[in-house]
Amino acid sequence: MEAGEGVSGTTPTEEMNGAGNLMDFLDEPFPDVGTYEDFHTIDWLREKSRDTDRHRKITSKSKESFWELIKSLLDAWSGWVVMLLIGLLSGTLAGVIDLAVDWMTDLKEGVCLTAFWYSHEQCCWTSNETTFDDRDKCPQWQKWAELMTGHAEGAGAYVLNYFLYVLWALLFSFLAVSLVRVFAPYACGSGIPEIKTILSGFIIRGYLGKWTLLIKTVTLVLAVSSGLSLGKEGPLVHVACCCGNLFCSLFSKYSKNEGKRREVLSAAAAAGVSVAFGAPIGGVLFSLEEVSYYFPLKTLWRSFFAALVAAFTLRSINPFGNSRLVLFYVEYHTPWYMAELVPFILLGVFGGLWGTLFIRANIAWCRRRKTTQLGKYPVLEVIAVTGITALLAFPNPYTRRSTSELISELFNDCGALESSQLCDYINNPNMSRPVDDIPDRPAGPGVYNALWQLALALVFKIVITIFTFGMKIPSGLFIPSMAVGAIAGRIVGIAVEQMAYHHHDWIIFKNWCRPGADCVTPGLYAMVGAAACLGGVTRMTVSLVVIMFELTGGLEYIVPLMAAAVTSKWVADAFGKEGIYESHIQLNGYPYLDVRDEFTHRTLATDVMRPRRNDPPLAVLTQDSTTVEDVETLIKDTDYNGFPVVVSRESERLIGFVQRRDLTLAIKTARQKQDGVVSSSVVYFTEDAPQLPASNPQPLKLRRVLNLSPFTVTDHTPMETVVDIFRKLGLRQCLVTRSGRLLGIITKKDVLRHMAQMMNQDPESIMFN
Amino acid sequence: MEAGEGVSGTTPTEEMNGAGNLMDFLDEPFPDVGTYEDFHTIDWLREKSRDTDRHRKITSKSKESFWELIKSLLDAWSGWVVMLLIGLLSGTLAGVIDLAVDWMTDLKEGVCLTAFWYSHEQCCWTSNETTFDDRDKCPQWQKWAELMTGHAEGAGAYVLNYFLYVLWALLFSFLAVSLVRVFAPYACGSGIPEIKTILSGFIIRGYLGKWTLLIKTVTLVLAVSSGLSLGKEGPLVHVACCCGNLFCSLFSKYSKNEGKRREVLSAAAAAGVSVAFGAPIGGVLFSLEEVSYYFPLKTLWRSFFAALVAAFTLRSINPFGNSRLVLFYVEYHTPWYMAELVPFILLGVFGGLWGTLFIRANIAWCRRRKTTQLGKYPVLEVIAVTGITALLAFPNPYTRRSTSELISELFNDCGALESSQLCDYINNPNMSRPVDDIPDRPAGPGVYNALWQLALALVFKIVITIFTFGMKIPSGLFIPSMAVGAIAGRIVGIAVEQMAYHHHDWIIFKNWCRPGADCVTPGLYAMVGAAACLGGVTRMTVSLVVIMFELTGGLEYIVPLMAAAVTSKWVADAFGKEGIYESHIQLNGYPYLDVRDEFTHRTLATDVMRPRRNDPPLAVLTQDSTTVEDVETLIKDTDYNGFPVVVSRESERLIGFVQRRDLTLAIKTARQKQDGVVSSSVVYFTEDAPQLPASNPQPLKLRRVLNLSPFTVTDHTPMETVVDIFRKLGLRQCLVTRSGRLLGIITKKDVLRHMAQMMNQDPESIMFN
Repeated sequence: MEAGEGVSGTTPTEEMNGAGNLMDFLDEPFPDVGTYEDFHTIDWLREKSRDTDRHRKITSKSKESFWELIKSLLDAWSGWVVMLLIGLLSGTLAGVIDLAVDWMTDLKEGVCLTAFWYSHEQCCWTSNETTFDDRDKCPQWQKWAELMTGHAEGAGAYVLNYFLYVLWALLFSFLAVSLVRVFAPYACGSGIPEIKTILSGFIIRGYLGKWTLLIKTVTLVLAVSSGLSLGKEGPLVHVACCCGNLFCSLFSKYSKNEGKRREVLSAAAAAGVSVAFGAPIGGVLFSLEEVSYYFPLKTLWRSFFAALVAAFTLRSINPFGNSRLVLFYVEYHTPWYMAELVPFILLGVFGGLWGTLFIRANIAWCRRRKTTQLGKYPVLEVIAVTGITALLAFPNPYTRRSTSELISELFNDCGALESSQLCDYINNPNMSRPVDDIPDRPAGPGVYNALWQLALALVFKIVITIFTFGMKIPSGLFIPSMAVGAIAGRIVGIAVEQMAYHHHDWIIFKNWCRPGADCVTPGLYAMVGAAACLGGVTRMTVSLVVIMFELTGGLEYIVPLMAAAVTSKWVADAFGKEGIYESHIQLNGYPYLDVRDEFTHRTLATDVMRPRRNDPPLAVLTQDSTTVEDVETLIKDTDYNGFPVVVSRESERLIGFVQRRDLTLAIKTARQKQDGVVSSSVVYFTEDAPQLPASNPQPLKLRRVLNLSPFTVTDHTPMETVVDIFRKLGLRQCLVTRSGRLLGIITKKDVLRHMAQMMNQDPESIMFN
Repeated sequence: MEAGEGVSGTTPTEEMNGAGNLMDFLDEPFPDVGTYEDFHTIDWLREKSRDTDRHRKITSKSKESFWELIKSLLDAWSGWVVMLLIGLLSGTLAGVIDLAVDWMTDLKEGVCLTAFWYSHEQCCWTSNETTFDDRDKCPQWQKWAELMTGHAEGAGAYVLNYFLYVLWALLFSFLAVSLVRVFAPYACGSGIPEIKTILSGFIIRGYLGKWTLLIKTVTLVLAVSSGLSLGKEGPLVHVACCCGNLFCSLFSKYSKNEGKRREVLSAAAAAGVSVAFGAPIGGVLFSLEEVSYYFPLKTLWRSFFAALVAAFTLRSINPFGNSRLVLFYVEYHTPWYMAELVPFILLGVFGGLWGTLFIRANIAWCRRRKTTQLGKYPVLEVIAVTGITALLAFPNPYTRRSTSELISELFNDCGALESSQLCDYINNPNMSRPVDDIPDRPAGPGVYNALWQLALALVFKIVITIFTFGMKIPSGLFIPSMAVGAIAGRIVGIAVEQMAYHHHDWIIFKNWCRPGADCVTPGLYAMVGAAACLGGVTRMTVSLVVIMFELTGGLEYIVPLMAAAVTSKWVADAFGKEGIYESHIQLNGYPYLDVRDEFTHRTLATDVMRPRRNDPPLAVLTQDSTTVEDVETLIKDTDYNGFPVVVSRESERLIGFVQRRDLTLAIKTARQKQDGVVSSSVVYFTEDAPQLPASNPQPLKLRRVLNLSPFTVTDHTPMETVVDIFRKLGLRQCLVTRSGRLLGIITKKDVLRHMAQMMNQDPESIMFN
């Protein structure tokens, strides 16, 4: 068999040859998935070729009987079925999480008397007495102090409420961190760095397992409800990927092929973002741009399907009670003006700076956590941060509520019926205008008060988020980043608005803002700020703009968003190319070959390959002069994944590559089953073993496990090309030759190590050496 | 120098060596772009490596002086500048085309008396007397008959108008085809198949040239105005790509590197679709999914920028006069119901069948055009088809107007103020409801009349489009396909609506449609039908749904669209995998390696490589025993692009690959400039040439032009892997070795030929041989 890979399932050719017995035997007890060990890298080319083999087998069988035809059709449809299931489950989970978070967040402040499982909003829906203005103050809903002491107001009630708020927060976060610690350590963090690594071809067993799914869902609710400065968006991607992995196990097509499995996971990531923001297209683009490694067009289509199913499942659950798909639905009444691009770009600069600051500070803190005593007390750390967060958050109404509610309010345009403090403008009784059209007005005391509180909230959010992200609980970054940007944006927006009101005569406002007209929308500034900050932290580009576009539902505001996103990315990139996810990947030392890093150094394959100059020579096998004992010694003495096979040690001409696992297995089997194979038997990788006299030990023919098409490059190949080949073909290793002679080997880890080395060296010294 | 490529510009290393003279000399007179000849394939790896060299050079120079720093910054920004320019120009051109088409389409029927350059709509804008109902009948606008004879009505006027309509159509199409024939033969067709081929790495000189741009723009206006069944969307992509190519020539970064140029062209294609539909995100996805070959993330971001700039430029020109960005803006008042998925899926089936029928019939007709006398009279063909189209189109009001107006009307929901025939429902005077909310009503005679006319228009469009696409004028397929679908959809929609009205008691309508409620929107059916037909013809998936989503601006209708698109694709794929563009690529024999075709056959590299079994041996050079004369003979006798260099003819061990062009150039230069190089000089590819006695002719050292890292695979490599490598790395050729011995060569054309062979063979016979 010449399919190019060692163990690759029985193929029609083999069956025709009638010699597939060994292969069958090799295959059965060790399912294919076991091919890769934990923390190893997969070989994409090999996985792809295995899938083609499988597909070929099914197609040829399907002509044999009706039943096989049905099976082949089921196989062809299984991809869509998996997508449907992922969409349904992740949509449902997202809905359940939303409902639970709503309820538990409100539980920190009070309880619904009619039905304790109602959130504040749900509780007051059913109330008849509620007028529009105090819909928040329905009698069914009681704060803890009121319920316990009967007094709703006063210092005592405030202190009691404060105390219970902190207590609930501590309880939730303690539960969350304990559950993570005990049941699923992989459930912590946002999960996106790990998912990126997994999708690039790394194996982390259990990271997407059932336990992780369960625990992450539960602890995510607890963590978000505890009021910590974290979001549920990143973890939702992890949850969706766990769903994807779960459903993969239903179909051997996906469960037994690591490459195919990753296609499903890419689609699941799209579904995750889709339900996080109600943005299916944005989700697909996020998966394409940010998370996925290998994203063929077929996956694009399927991802889109999964994302849509997920979004509609979420909508039919309707957790926000407004039949809107999106988290922050906004509708602005006025267009924006060219002059406003200046503040938008300034917000972009702010977003870039925040991104840089956050990444540097957070990485420094996480490194400290890893290297000092701090890392040994994760529970205490979570408790301490929660305590501080809750203590500082309660007094400020903008930090007391959940972060997504805060963002929602900041994005909102001040309509006539808005009761928020932020909309406390002084009305001019002389003006009679339609209700919807609110002209620019002087800010009232409520707005100034809100500005102060927002400024404090901004500082608080900036500082606390740095310490929160990376703790041992599920924690997403999208919402806190957006909150920082939205606060900053709203402040700038109000400033511009008031400036425009008070200085109608300034040249910049003259053409744009008639007195009494509505020309500045502070909510839009909040949205632009949120996009800028999110962009600065994650370095998303197209997906960011598309997600924000789907949140608002109008092309009108795409230019401001784009301007802020571009500026933010440029500013942040000037200080360091890596986004938060790449930084965490580096911090954790995952073998991730970033598609976006351009390798521009002038090194050659010969500089990177092993063995290095003073190393012992490469461990190779010869095609017809190694004994079984030699091979066993080699296997015992080294821990390489595989060994090149050469014609002879003198000529060093490469004929193939044999996987360590296949070799071990084949020898073990032969020793057990094949008579006459002893330690002194010669191993033959040639097509025909010579006829030996009967006295000699029986030869062991191993051509079957030899990969006859190992990937080779010459020693003069620029590393730039080698990196490209590793990336695009998803190789695990590559052999280096010169004029047909085997010189060495380059593995993915060598490439990564070399890239890291080059990055750290002085660029000039590399350029000219 | 060891950059791995023959001629790759002077690099810092060379300058340091002080030995770059030959290279400089070689480089100057032959600009890099000349490296590839017309109808040749580019080597992506090589282009990429050349760009890295260039970048490295600029970076290192930028430290030398302030001026160089500025230059390097300009270089870094040039990509964005090109995108901006592309967006501005293609947006402007699209706006101009829209305006011109509007005017000239109306010119066929009449003229504006106040200003002849006004279209009907613009003419009547300025009219004060116009009431809402007869805004089309303002006195400033006169039909030709009225203007010439004074009678607006009557048989005479009708015949005169008919005659002039046909005459104008013939004039426009004659002008179009003549201009194409005389000035720019490449301006015909939609251009998308060729652009796909170019983007995959093929060189077609002049296809994106200035003349093509100019002529395509002008003839596109003429062709669309002539009333032929064609659209402007595909050609707009070609126009945008021409703009991209034009601006590439401003920057040597893009003009001298075929790989970088293609990145710009991918973005330009996105801008083209963006202005065609007012759908920037859809444009980017179209470029990603349908057109592009190599689409790195950087290009995604830039494409998005270009697409947005283009869309906003178009909007500021405001050709539709309604400040809407999109071509067919619709707003429906009612949601859709689950039961409606059945007709939507049926429309999907129709779309798939139409796609299959159209592709087969059109390809058969185009093949006939290529192989018979028909192809020799393109002008006559165009005249004939235009004549038939105009003659048949005039009597039917739905075909007389421009196709995009027709689609627009079909998509429209019947509001209360709609005067269209399609909205002629019988009003029930007993019902008093708000103006906006139109309940389902029995259809009036106007609707039944319209249904007949639409049915005739459907048949007409189906037949005539098959003959129109592929003629020697610019012609897009999007609009005619959408028209076919929209007509079918509207008919189905009205049928369902009337069924629901007359049979409220049927079980399927009971839960969904109260009497008097508005429950079926025929316009939505038209939109779904349009998506299905467009999908059937082009096999777009995500981009199709996103474009339709951007056209309507609501996520509400994404599920119907998706259902129809999926069904249509499945039905059409069942009859043949290729969309219309791939079919035309095949018809024209372009060397296009489709990313989506899965190669599943079990052939090996050895089955594909040349020389074949009975061929003469491979033309190779040896590293130190070929004379200049031998080389020259080899160059003269063969037409290969390059030659492998081996250690010796006996060992056949590969050391590198030399390009034909580099070899010719180097020998020519050496003969002119280097003393002592004569025909009997030995050519050395080794690192050092031996010291020869003075009597011997001077040796010619050519290691400089030798590519020391040619791409190799072993003869046992499955073709599946080889195809993957060619696709992903964009190779031009690949050498085949066994145990370090050179056996043969596989070029991209060999791969394509092999794939075509395999496709045509009986799949079973391949599977088991």
